[in-house]
Amino acid sequence: MPKSPNEALDYAQQNKNEFLEELKKFVRIPSVSTDPDHKPDIQKAANWVAERLDGLGMQNISVLPTAGHPVVYGESLAAGKHKPTVLIYGHYDVQPADPLELWLTPPFEPTQKGENLYGRGASDMKGQIIVSLKSIESILQTGKLPFNIKFIIEGEEEIGSPNLEKFITDNSDLLSCDIVINPDGGIIAPDTPSITYGLRGLAYFELRISGPDHDLHSGIFGGAIHNPAQVLCELIAGMHDENGRITLPGYYDDVRSLEDEERHEIARLPTDEEFFKLQTGAPALYGEKGYSSSERIGVRPTLEVNGLLSGFTGEGSKTVLPCTAMAKLSMRLVPDQDPSKVHQQLTAYLDKNAPATVTWDLIPLAGAFASITDRNMPAVNALAQAFQDTWGTKPVYKREGGTVPVVAQMQSILKVDSVLTGFGLPDDNLHAPNEKIHLPTFYKGIESFIRFFTILGD
Amino acid sequence: MPKSPNEALDYAQQNKNEFLEELKKFVRIPSVSTDPDHKPDIQKAANWVAERLDGLGMQNISVLPTAGHPVVYGESLAAGKHKPTVLIYGHYDVQPADPLELWLTPPFEPTQKGENLYGRGASDMKGQIIVSLKSIESILQTGKLPFNIKFIIEGEEEIGSPNLEKFITDNSDLLSCDIVINPDGGIIAPDTPSITYGLRGLAYFELRISGPDHDLHSGIFGGAIHNPAQVLCELIAGMHDENGRITLPGYYDDVRSLEDEERHEIARLPTDEEFFKLQTGAPALYGEKGYSSSERIGVRPTLEVNGLLSGFTGEGSKTVLPCTAMAKLSMRLVPDQDPSKVHQQLTAYLDKNAPATVTWDLIPLAGAFASITDRNMPAVNALAQAFQDTWGTKPVYKREGGTVPVVAQMQSILKVDSVLTGFGLPDDNLHAPNEKIHLPTFYKGIESFIRFFTILGD
Repeated sequence: MPKSPNEALDYAQQNKNEFLEELKKFVRIPSVSTDPDHKPDIQKAANWVAERLDGLGMQNISVLPTAGHPVVYGESLAAGKHKPTVLIYGHYDVQPADPLELWLTPPFEPTQKGENLYGRGASDMKGQIIVSLKSIESILQTGKLPFNIKFIIEGEEEIGSPNLEKFITDNSDLLSCDIVINPDGGIIAPDTPSITYGLRGLAYFELRISGPDHDLHSGIFGGAIHNPAQVLCELIAGMHDENGRITLPGYYDDVRSLEDEERHEIARLPTDEEFFKLQTGAPALYGEKGYSSSERIGVRPTLEVNGLLSGFTGEGSKTVLPCTAMAKLSMRLVPDQDPSKVHQQLTAYLDKNAPATVTWDLIPLAGAFASITDRNMPAVNALAQAFQDTWGTKPVYKREGGTVPVVAQMQSILKVDSVLTGFGLPDDNLHAPNEKIHLPTFYKGIESFIRFFTILGD
Repeated sequence: MPKSPNEALDYAQQNKNEFLEELKKFVRIPSVSTDPDHKPDIQKAANWVAERLDGLGMQNISVLPTAGHPVVYGESLAAGKHKPTVLIYGHYDVQPADPLELWLTPPFEPTQKGENLYGRGASDMKGQIIVSLKSIESILQTGKLPFNIKFIIEGEEEIGSPNLEKFITDNSDLLSCDIVINPDGGIIAPDTPSITYGLRGLAYFELRISGPDHDLHSGIFGGAIHNPAQVLCELIAGMHDENGRITLPGYYDDVRSLEDEERHEIARLPTDEEFFKLQTGAPALYGEKGYSSSERIGVRPTLEVNGLLSGFTGEGSKTVLPCTAMAKLSMRLVPDQDPSKVHQQLTAYLDKNAPATVTWDLIPLAGAFASITDRNMPAVNALAQAFQDTWGTKPVYKREGGTVPVVAQMQSILKVDSVLTGFGLPDDNLHAPNEKIHLPTFYKGIESFIRFFTILGD
């Protein structure tokens, strides 16, 4: 039987307002990792996290440099060598806030409306870091941690963690552990706790098409020159066939086929077609023929256009024949696709299909493997029990469409599995304007993590 | 025999530097018609032109309001009713300067390098207006004008002259004339004067595609939603077939077929395939099968992508599934296409091809008919003679790919033909960064216009 977490739960209940204020302070730091202008804010956020670890009584706290943004580390090994070691992963960086004009409240001034707190990073994942810190604080303020703990909070997750793999490799002894807790996932609905056992990978590229060596007058030259924006559209249009399948050569070769058993489990998820219509507001759904929306997101790879830019985009008209066109393209990958092989496949597609009227340049910006973990390991069972105790309902198990590169890296370098969970909701507007966190779910997250850590240490 | 223009030519020779300084002053006014921020500059440019007409001794000078930017008018009817009336058309507005970062010198600070003067509008068409004003000045300072003259200098040519048709209709008595001189054309090479007898029309649109009602996380929703940027690319890719022909339904129905005689004449133009490669720097040429580059530009219609914008276009990566995507699309039209019918054709294409996964909106931004005039009218012969006297070579006759909406409007409303000429070169970077005018050609333009006006009045 686990020890009772009652005192820790009482502590958390009494300190709800303080916990919320901490989250607000964290959200106020605009730690946008992709934007060089925000480098000082990145440093500020890293220091802020380090101070919080210090406040928890962690040891060996360091803000460790990488080739990019620093990683914050802290540990408590007081439980001793015979006790297990839990590594908590998080990231203190956030997505850019643009398009700014679509925010109803300032993105970096957290604003409470009803049950939600609005602000960039509130859900992804500053709120989840606060859940982790405050559940540990609640246990430590009312007793002892029954296991050793390590924190690793990085600052480049939103740009694909380009320096994390090297960091983990270089610091594999420091980071050695028995299990990773990664709360960068989400839950399906406020009444449906969930545990993620799979994540998609990512391959992100910038494709640049160049035609004439300068912008041309569309009257004087139009008709005799292949417009690079037209070429870009033609190339992108050819990347999907009429069944919504991706046409890059060999793209599906390494994709694990969906077994009947897993298909049956996915069908049990409450995310039906109506759910996706409501969540997105799209006039109609779309996707690869032969798969449901949940399958298309969970177990099938994608190819998305994340951005397009060419020529004149201001108000009014300009009759330019632009000399370049750019697209941001990314693929969400599934086991066992390899981001570097996908790079080769995209290159092969362009080699074959780009016309001689243009030149092209493909710049890889991020790559991460997909991951999948065992649904029956003890830590997952402990979390399931904690969720059951908190929500009064069994969690659902799901594969997520998003990417957390660190999960695959921990698996391959540290040989440890990650427990993926978290308390963000599908309508939290992650990576979009008006990101928010649902506060009742945030508090339940703290409560369930107190139970989880208590059971885990038993 | 024409009177000798020698004194006027001497005057022009002695005042070369003053003429250049006037051009520089004009270029310094950033009269960008498409940008509301430049409205005061538009007014400034209109007033500047009015002052120059006053300096020439014109009468009845007015800066006449329209629903958009004003039209500058001035006249001299001193030659009397029995003499012909020549209307000189021009526009004092210019294209936007962006992308600013590609300019090697400030766009609105005219900069002389070698034989060229760089600056937005130097060639299109402030330089051509100065040629017109200074040739008339040279004649008036050394004698008398042998015909009546009217100037109409508008401020909305670069945005498709949306208010000019109404202005001409409302002021048809004021503008009545025997011939229009329109120097908004260009010449093929510094040693090849040219007269334009045909111009393409224009239909310009903004196409907006909307999918989900907010930007989505490409991991959480990617695969189940039709990406609006992908849809935009698919729609644009479908607008040309594999032969470079435009697929809008009925698009070629009203296009005049190319007769053997005209094809033979076009083949005599010095603009061969090598010329277009050199002028554009494109790796290879492109276009509708069965036509040469000169034919594709002169006598065949086009569909160009003038701009693309969707999602994240900054540095780095953002894994957004954008909720909207926008394209600026325009068609250069040939006789007898109708811009409003082309609007219907594009609408029909979108009705048929846009998927139910998105909604779309098509905003017409500009429309103009193509035009074609008689190569054997007396004014054209006078200009040909003046060019022969100045360059020592006969001019070539050509149909241009660009659009000057006013030519078709003058034909339909005032029932007068336009003589289309000008002294801009193909490498003047019209509508692009680093626009320039070739100064020896600019001075030859003034010289040839002095001769032209002298012969015309004889």
